[in-house]
Amino acid sequence: MLDLLIKSAYLPEKGRPVDVGIRDGIIVDISANIQQEAKYTIHANGKIIFPSFANMHTHISMSLLRGLGADLPLMDWLQKVIWVLEGEFVSPEFVRDGALIGVAEAIRSGTTLFMDMYFFEEAVAEVAKEAGIRAGLGFGILDFPTKVAKSPEEYLKRAKDFIRTFKGEDLLFPVLCPHAVYTCSPETLKKALELAQEEDVYIHTHTAETQQEVEASVENFGKRPVEHLNSLGLLTEKTLMAHVVWTTQEERQLIKESGAKVLHCPESNLKLASGIAPISDYVKAGIHVCLGTDGPASNDNLDMLEELSLMVKLQKGANLDARSMDAKTALKIATEEGFRAVNIKAGKIEVGYEADLILLDPTGPHMQPLYDPIAQLVYSAKSSDIDTVICKGRVLMEKRELKTIDYQEVLFIAQKWKERIENFLRHRIYT
Amino acid sequence: MLDLLIKSAYLPEKGRPVDVGIRDGIIVDISANIQQEAKYTIHANGKIIFPSFANMHTHISMSLLRGLGADLPLMDWLQKVIWVLEGEFVSPEFVRDGALIGVAEAIRSGTTLFMDMYFFEEAVAEVAKEAGIRAGLGFGILDFPTKVAKSPEEYLKRAKDFIRTFKGEDLLFPVLCPHAVYTCSPETLKKALELAQEEDVYIHTHTAETQQEVEASVENFGKRPVEHLNSLGLLTEKTLMAHVVWTTQEERQLIKESGAKVLHCPESNLKLASGIAPISDYVKAGIHVCLGTDGPASNDNLDMLEELSLMVKLQKGANLDARSMDAKTALKIATEEGFRAVNIKAGKIEVGYEADLILLDPTGPHMQPLYDPIAQLVYSAKSSDIDTVICKGRVLMEKRELKTIDYQEVLFIAQKWKERIENFLRHRIYT
Repeated sequence: MLDLLIKSAYLPEKGRPVDVGIRDGIIVDISANIQQEAKYTIHANGKIIFPSFANMHTHISMSLLRGLGADLPLMDWLQKVIWVLEGEFVSPEFVRDGALIGVAEAIRSGTTLFMDMYFFEEAVAEVAKEAGIRAGLGFGILDFPTKVAKSPEEYLKRAKDFIRTFKGEDLLFPVLCPHAVYTCSPETLKKALELAQEEDVYIHTHTAETQQEVEASVENFGKRPVEHLNSLGLLTEKTLMAHVVWTTQEERQLIKESGAKVLHCPESNLKLASGIAPISDYVKAGIHVCLGTDGPASNDNLDMLEELSLMVKLQKGANLDARSMDAKTALKIATEEGFRAVNIKAGKIEVGYEADLILLDPTGPHMQPLYDPIAQLVYSAKSSDIDTVICKGRVLMEKRELKTIDYQEVLFIAQKWKERIENFLRHRIYT
Repeated sequence: MLDLLIKSAYLPEKGRPVDVGIRDGIIVDISANIQQEAKYTIHANGKIIFPSFANMHTHISMSLLRGLGADLPLMDWLQKVIWVLEGEFVSPEFVRDGALIGVAEAIRSGTTLFMDMYFFEEAVAEVAKEAGIRAGLGFGILDFPTKVAKSPEEYLKRAKDFIRTFKGEDLLFPVLCPHAVYTCSPETLKKALELAQEEDVYIHTHTAETQQEVEASVENFGKRPVEHLNSLGLLTEKTLMAHVVWTTQEERQLIKESGAKVLHCPESNLKLASGIAPISDYVKAGIHVCLGTDGPASNDNLDMLEELSLMVKLQKGANLDARSMDAKTALKIATEEGFRAVNIKAGKIEVGYEADLILLDPTGPHMQPLYDPIAQLVYSAKSSDIDTVICKGRVLMEKRELKTIDYQEVLFIAQKWKERIENFLRHRIYT
């Protein structure tokens, strides 16, 4: 008995429709006509089957700050809008509610894994678990006090408790997030590394996002950010670095040799004027590259298909070379390479892989005629074409309807926070 | 009696819902509660009202070649794929069928005007007229023979007949399209200018798309493309130049002084590795900038919302300055500036403007919470949020359903061409 049977989905690699059988969250059969019974059957009717997306860098609860301060320069945006609002509002309730909106959006756009980094990640865990989506729960570490802790020692102590609470979960896993080289001292970074190694968890951090960050790092430490992390021992196979826009050839070599991962966020890098990361060079150098959206306040959405389409076009345009990246590579980066970075065997439609996948409806006018499904996914499709989303064999969306989230609650909490935050802004900033 | 009444649409500029009354294609009333009767009423229920988009540069019938040869360098893509297929297939039937798919896609993504350039534009006219969408029908002029004509003289003669046939139409207008400085001799360009001035029509051409084009122009004419056009008298208020990626400060001054328009196509420029046009510099210099998608084989869709979102982020990222462009400016470029370039009083939701508008459904998770409708249109929304599209007072789409196009026919012709073209490719290129 199968848990789930998908009938007649078009598989691009085979160039024809197949049936896909799933048991215990694993793809166990791909063939022309599966006769075995199943607890649940989806009739794909020629919809195209692709791996689902792995969004490898986000701050999902920042959905509650979406679009605020858009068009301000980075430091004004942070100091005058984001930090002010976070200081006032961030709480377990804020994080939970923001995560619910974000997870609804992530599922609707075909994502089944997100690597998060924020405060009160217990609240993200609660939402992700209920929704049935995979999440890397990033416990943030900073040198300065916030509502979470008063000192680096206290952050690290709480992080250790957090890690032990969430270890061994099925779809969730704890991650340690020293925020960046400009918010964590070398001492804090070293202690974070020790804790991550003791507990055998991934480190997820921001690295070389802006030129200003690089200049400050050189001034303070005599080294550029990647060199600095390397000198402290933080470049490891289990290190995930978001952005990595500004690097020298020597730094790229360090990243490659260490096996550390680059989490590319092209929309955020453009919108916040950080720059254009040399991703096709990284790929050519053999660096493990993944894709993320960044938080929904700096993107301003969680749409991985938009992100992946931008990534490949941006590399072609910025390098003045159409061969810089192709559609197939872009799709792999947004799917398989993300899961592989955190040792999840998903991101491919193959027997033995975990069943994280989407069904894409190819009947929209922008998909006509359909010659090359991968090129058309990358260059023509929209996330609204995603009809069905499956995470480890569980159906999270079918016929565009969320199966594990009460969408009325999403709209209700969005309205609640809109009123609270707008009321605050009226009285505190604009008067 | 109104022709059309829109009840309770949220108007961003006013920050509250309004009713909009339309008569004879014109917005005649915007107020809190219009009591006048109407032939047709749309209950917007808080959907957001925006101007519709003006897609100022496309080759709409190339939808039939969508996604073919994706990832090839420009010259291979053109010579080995596009020109081969066009040579084999382009005909009035091809152009009509491709236009039908493209017009369906354009309407579904909120566009009510497209400036086209291709062969057999009579067939585009037929489709656009039936669908009720505005079109600038661009009659292409080349130095080399095609199915349309054998010599520049014959193209110009046919163009004259074409212009006289389509002058005085309501939503359609003829446009003269000398293709580019690298496909039209100075002699042909001058004759095209004479004809355009005699007949008082717009000139629509490709200019300074790639560095190679600039180098060839300098080599052949001793002048860069914009200088060359200027020396021939082709920079006029009625000249629309697509791309304009590579220009000097002097050329920008020439464009500004002449009143010629720049039609920016950022996705195509990235995907075909042409480069990143300095659009925010153009805007600062006072140049009239419009937005287009380019043809659906080089983009690979006709989604103006995607294009507009990319434009603004790309300017910020490429200039390393978040103030390079803001959401409001981007929206204006994609709407009002397009209509204004061809002297259509549309692109604004104001009494006295023609009623070209969209209603956007703000209830998707990626739009929650909704603080700033213009920022969220530009940075968060997807074209699938567009619920209703109105062109000069006529409803072309309502509740995502096309009102003037039989969508079953769209799918049928797409399948027909897929089979024809794939059959040809199997036998001619890949064997």
